[in-house]
Amino acid sequence: MNSSPLINDLIEAFRCLPGVGPKSAQRMTLYLLGRNRSGGLKLSESLSSALEEVGNCEQCRTFTEENICRICSSNSRDRKICCVVESPVDIFAIEQSATFSGVYYVLMGRLSPIDGIGPEQLGIDNLMKKVEVENIEELIIACNPTVEGEATAYYIAEQFKNSQVSVSRIAHGVPVGGELEFVDGGTLGHAFSGRKIIENTQSHESD
Amino acid sequence: MNSSPLINDLIEAFRCLPGVGPKSAQRMTLYLLGRNRSGGLKLSESLSSALEEVGNCEQCRTFTEENICRICSSNSRDRKICCVVESPVDIFAIEQSATFSGVYYVLMGRLSPIDGIGPEQLGIDNLMKKVEVENIEELIIACNPTVEGEATAYYIAEQFKNSQVSVSRIAHGVPVGGELEFVDGGTLGHAFSGRKIIENTQSHESD
Repeated sequence: MNSSPLINDLIEAFRCLPGVGPKSAQRMTLYLLGRNRSGGLKLSESLSSALEEVGNCEQCRTFTEENICRICSSNSRDRKICCVVESPVDIFAIEQSATFSGVYYVLMGRLSPIDGIGPEQLGIDNLMKKVEVENIEELIIACNPTVEGEATAYYIAEQFKNSQVSVSRIAHGVPVGGELEFVDGGTLGHAFSGRKIIENTQSHESD
Repeated sequence: MNSSPLINDLIEAFRCLPGVGPKSAQRMTLYLLGRNRSGGLKLSESLSSALEEVGNCEQCRTFTEENICRICSSNSRDRKICCVVESPVDIFAIEQSATFSGVYYVLMGRLSPIDGIGPEQLGIDNLMKKVEVENIEELIIACNPTVEGEATAYYIAEQFKNSQVSVSRIAHGVPVGGELEFVDGGTLGHAFSGRKIIENTQSHESD
């Protein structure tokens, strides 16, 4: 279809990216060759150095080029609270919201027997050791609210049943700014079952 | 937001691709690091070798890693007919349809004074030389049917007004398989003005 093997190779290589089909791959290839060679060169270099140097943090398993990631090695984080997430991208999202100052543990997936992902692949043994060795007081499970995510959260909670650590799950409900009429039934169900009593001034004073 | 400078660099580098915003760039980065390192390595290598070696064909200006591209150097192409297109991607599309066996000339853009793209940038001088030297008999202008594409087609046709070469424009009309109710007014206008008499059997016989 195209007369240049190098261009064909590059189009084929772009298709490994998520969400990129043959047309997008062609467009990316011709855009970089025709209009942004410096950007393409930068991409090629960043990609090869990231692939070469980025590994997993020894403590939380997130991606980092150091032995221990910056969050795990920071002095300003509360090491008594650990948030368990499925993927490093979840850390990005939580860090951006600036609502959590503890440390993380990244499962790098969720329980999915069909794909051969069991407790060993998620490093749940390591998590149990970490909790014991580092005297973690609270484990906040922030798996995604999907079927597999819920199963993973339930499995982890089961493992810590006889442990001192307090295991919690982040709240699910109507998103802030969301309107009830556009919220799905499952979310509304969570919102109702997770409802909280509105405390009045008196009870506040009695605290 | 993220603790790894190499990952941040890679996310930033992915954003140079057309149609890739911050979220997609993050997703691509984490996907390659976590699940497809070999694909990422292949992409990095293909990209650097394509950027290093791919230049423009001396005859038709399309992208190629050779001096003269495979279409221009092929013996099975009709060198008397030349199709003028805006970009190498148009050659891919035309070659896939297998409806044209002549050679191409790639403008690498279209007339767009606002972006500083004039006749010199499109190599129209070279095209005129090529037509004269190679004794081209027909020039098929296949610029895109946009305002700039039409202006480019008109400009090229003007240049060959006093020349022996026959200049044609590909037909615009209702796409095959398209339904009239979903076709825009401009296309319908072209379809009507470009209508053809349906020849009956007798006139066929008289041919």
